[in-house]
Amino acid sequence: MEKIKTIIHEEPNLTKPILIEGLPGVGNVGKLAAEHLLDQLKAVKFADIYSVHFPPQVVLDDDGVAKLVNNELYYSKAEDGSHPDLLIVVGDYQGLTPEGQYDISDHILQLALKYEVQRIYTLGGYGVGKILEDPRVLGAATSLELVEEMKERGVVFSKGEPGSGIVGASGLLLGLGKVYGMEAICLMGETSGYFVDPKGAEAVLRILAAILNIEIDFSELENKAEQIDAIASKLKEMETPQLEEAPPEDLRYIG
Amino acid sequence: MEKIKTIIHEEPNLTKPILIEGLPGVGNVGKLAAEHLLDQLKAVKFADIYSVHFPPQVVLDDDGVAKLVNNELYYSKAEDGSHPDLLIVVGDYQGLTPEGQYDISDHILQLALKYEVQRIYTLGGYGVGKILEDPRVLGAATSLELVEEMKERGVVFSKGEPGSGIVGASGLLLGLGKVYGMEAICLMGETSGYFVDPKGAEAVLRILAAILNIEIDFSELENKAEQIDAIASKLKEMETPQLEEAPPEDLRYIG
Amino acid sequence: MEKIKTIIHEEPNLTKPILIEGLPGVGNVGKLAAEHLLDQLKAVKFADIYSVHFPPQVVLDDDGVAKLVNNELYYSKAEDGSHPDLLIVVGDYQGLTPEGQYDISDHILQLALKYEVQRIYTLGGYGVGKILEDPRVLGAATSLELVEEMKERGVVFSKGEPGSGIVGASGLLLGLGKVYGMEAICLMGETSGYFVDPKGAEAVLRILAAILNIEIDFSELENKAEQIDAIASKLKEMETPQLEEAPPEDLRYIG
Amino acid sequence: MEKIKTIIHEEPNLTKPILIEGLPGVGNVGKLAAEHLLDQLKAVKFADIYSVHFPPQVVLDDDGVAKLVNNELYYSKAEDGSHPDLLIVVGDYQGLTPEGQYDISDHILQLALKYEVQRIYTLGGYGVGKILEDPRVLGAATSLELVEEMKERGVVFSKGEPGSGIVGASGLLLGLGKVYGMEAICLMGETSGYFVDPKGAEAVLRILAAILNIEIDFSELENKAEQIDAIASKLKEMETPQLEEAPPEDLRYIG
Repeated sequence: MEKIKTIIHEEPNLTKPILIEGLPGVGNVGKLAAEHLLDQLKAVKFADIYSVHFPPQVVLDDDGVAKLVNNELYYSKAEDGSHPDLLIVVGDYQGLTPEGQYDISDHILQLALKYEVQRIYTLGGYGVGKILEDPRVLGAATSLELVEEMKERGVVFSKGEPGSGIVGASGLLLGLGKVYGMEAICLMGETSGYFVDPKGAEAVLRILAAILNIEIDFSELENKAEQIDAIASKLKEMETPQLEEAPPEDLRYIG
Repeated sequence: MEKIKTIIHEEPNLTKPILIEGLPGVGNVGKLAAEHLLDQLKAVKFADIYSVHFPPQVVLDDDGVAKLVNNELYYSKAEDGSHPDLLIVVGDYQGLTPEGQYDISDHILQLALKYEVQRIYTLGGYGVGKILEDPRVLGAATSLELVEEMKERGVVFSKGEPGSGIVGASGLLLGLGKVYGMEAICLMGETSGYFVDPKGAEAVLRILAAILNIEIDFSELENKAEQIDAIASKLKEMETPQLEEAPPEDLRYIG
Repeated sequence: MEKIKTIIHEEPNLTKPILIEGLPGVGNVGKLAAEHLLDQLKAVKFADIYSVHFPPQVVLDDDGVAKLVNNELYYSKAEDGSHPDLLIVVGDYQGLTPEGQYDISDHILQLALKYEVQRIYTLGGYGVGKILEDPRVLGAATSLELVEEMKERGVVFSKGEPGSGIVGASGLLLGLGKVYGMEAICLMGETSGYFVDPKGAEAVLRILAAILNIEIDFSELENKAEQIDAIASKLKEMETPQLEEAPPEDLRYIG
Repeated sequence: MEKIKTIIHEEPNLTKPILIEGLPGVGNVGKLAAEHLLDQLKAVKFADIYSVHFPPQVVLDDDGVAKLVNNELYYSKAEDGSHPDLLIVVGDYQGLTPEGQYDISDHILQLALKYEVQRIYTLGGYGVGKILEDPRVLGAATSLELVEEMKERGVVFSKGEPGSGIVGASGLLLGLGKVYGMEAICLMGETSGYFVDPKGAEAVLRILAAILNIEIDFSELENKAEQIDAIASKLKEMETPQLEEAPPEDLRYIG
């Protein structure tokens, strides 16, 4: 089969939309933030992206109905023009291989170019290995002008953080987007990396919402964060010296 | 070479056939069930599917005659019209990589579309890690209507089972089949996962045979099940604490 | 680059040649046998096969001159017509991946079809895990008629040996060759699998030479075998219980 | 996306340029040497090579500006004609897979052929597992004439070094270059392999600069070498028996 099969259910009519990406990653920060944004905006799904680069797998809903794993594209238009048009990409998985990562990010960018996207925000987590009360939002961008613009929004640019660069869709959409002449910013919420982290997601989404002039009700994310905090506290009570450095594999993601 | 090379020996004349898949997997439940169905129906092999996605390997028969590993397509027509026309896919292996899995499942679906297949049953095992007297048959399907239809046939739909979805050909034929507009159901026989499991295969095939209005003689599967039970009993006598959790690699599949 | 790049230095004029394959494998039995045949026949190299499926590597000769790793095709014509025309494939490596194995074997078969090859002998080793005084030559073939023909030549066909089939080029040339309508036989010399094994190679080549009506001087292979025997004897003196079952990695191949 | 995407910013006007490759490898000897040559010659970057064969990753500069990982092509022309025109390839990574290695090396050679390159120098390290005061420069080449020419320049050709041939871009550009009819030489500076090694790089570059008639100021490389020596000395003080044979993974590369 073709490497990527995209089914477009509806051709949205958008004006210079902004692309927002929130795929699974460290602490699922980007995914949580993008999905919460979707819900708040009542964004509309208009395309499914299937690919040989995803696991050969269906997921089941609570009734037992199967869905092939995929990435999905949503759009949102403000009826009152209060915020810019948005394209939002979320999904079950990122590409499994380096080549798969490139193919899928490039495919998303070709779609973005078709809809005349000029700016991209990619959302992710920055794993720091410890639980933080007040996570920062670190940034990377495709130009010095964008770096300055983001600093004014409260995004932290810190030399050597992240030291190894940005891996995966959040990195590639920046890097390939720059090659295609687009402006792109990566917003990374600090996270322990041990759990799905709604607190990191909230930090990222607060900054993004302010930039895009969108009002967000964060109570649902905050509830989730409290549940995770409760679990983390219980784990801390049981804490052993090893746990501080490397928690058991199966506790890292709860979600 | 081309990724998949299919040699069609005979073009069967079929009326809206139903596709049944039984490739190797957990407990080889699907493979055993589909092969037993083949034997009982005296189904006719009409196509061989070779692929770079299979192991680079020949298997030998008892005389030393070599055959390249493959997937095979059989058909069955009831002369008296007592059951629907069937296409049955069995084989030595599934694709070795995610991309291989997608390519081969898509290829089988393209063949199915050519023969105007509208419904698919994929057969597999659901590993539960312990030996069961009376295995259930769990299900997944491409729509809520199909879920309801299968429940009436005794298929169990249980929220969160299997929690991680369905991986491999049995999952992909559902997921991709749905994308192509086909109805598809996965029937999963519970199995310990330690042995080739004719008991799980029988449970699956009893439900499928009832749905398709086919009479099956299960004595051969039952004999195999007794042999496996005897081996399992012996192992239980020798059982050590470790065995209960993780039996030696070379005891997991006997077949 | 193209997946396989073949450079043909000379177009040999051959009459229904027989293809012989001896690539690296268990005990390097097939490689040793084919290379000894080459030397004895003063066969002529006429083609180099390079491929992305081989390691990205050059090997150096004693002077420091580099050569990209490859497979090579030789031909041999008997001036007096005493033996059939031969195509012989040898090389540094087999394909690194399953897909690479298929691509290269298929490529060799396409070349063989171009030269109107109708019969193939693939040479390999059959690892038995212990040192044998008098190794048998096991066989596999693409038809029952060929099995019978080979039995008359002293090739052993033994049910369940090798139980797991034949993996790699020696298997694929049989399996794919059969799909293309060619006759193919695999000759496997028994070998411990611990060392490069000239004795196993001699056993294979004695049978092949008789079939092809070629006179071979085996003294060089026998000298090599004596050297290996001497090393094996020394190792046996130093033998520890572990050694009998699994010799150190770096002793398995000396060549 | 296409497997390799090259963006040429400027078409240099070069006369039979010599291609020099210095990509990451053992001790980063080749990379350090080529980058120091670039700096000294004030060479001009004229092309970026992106590929699905590189990691799916951006790297960040000190300001937080992202760049997709790549290979880069520079050129240098001597205004006074004192040295031949040069094409220099450097980069963040080599291809991740064997196929990626072949694709990228072949791509670089196609560019080289376009600019009428007739000779190639590939620069690398030869890991010897201990720290040397005065590293040799070992060589490999595509013909005996080149071997002789290099010996006169002080390059060491030593039978069996490196015994396993040359893996990666430094090997492939030789091997594939030879297939395309180009002259190619690999210069390998001895290095412990434990650290980024400016001393090995200096040894390689001294020979290359003499061949190319280029004057180089080595003070910067020598400063880096002193820093590494200081670190190595401290490690030696802390030395344990294990360290001598296998230093901790995270000390092997500092750079």
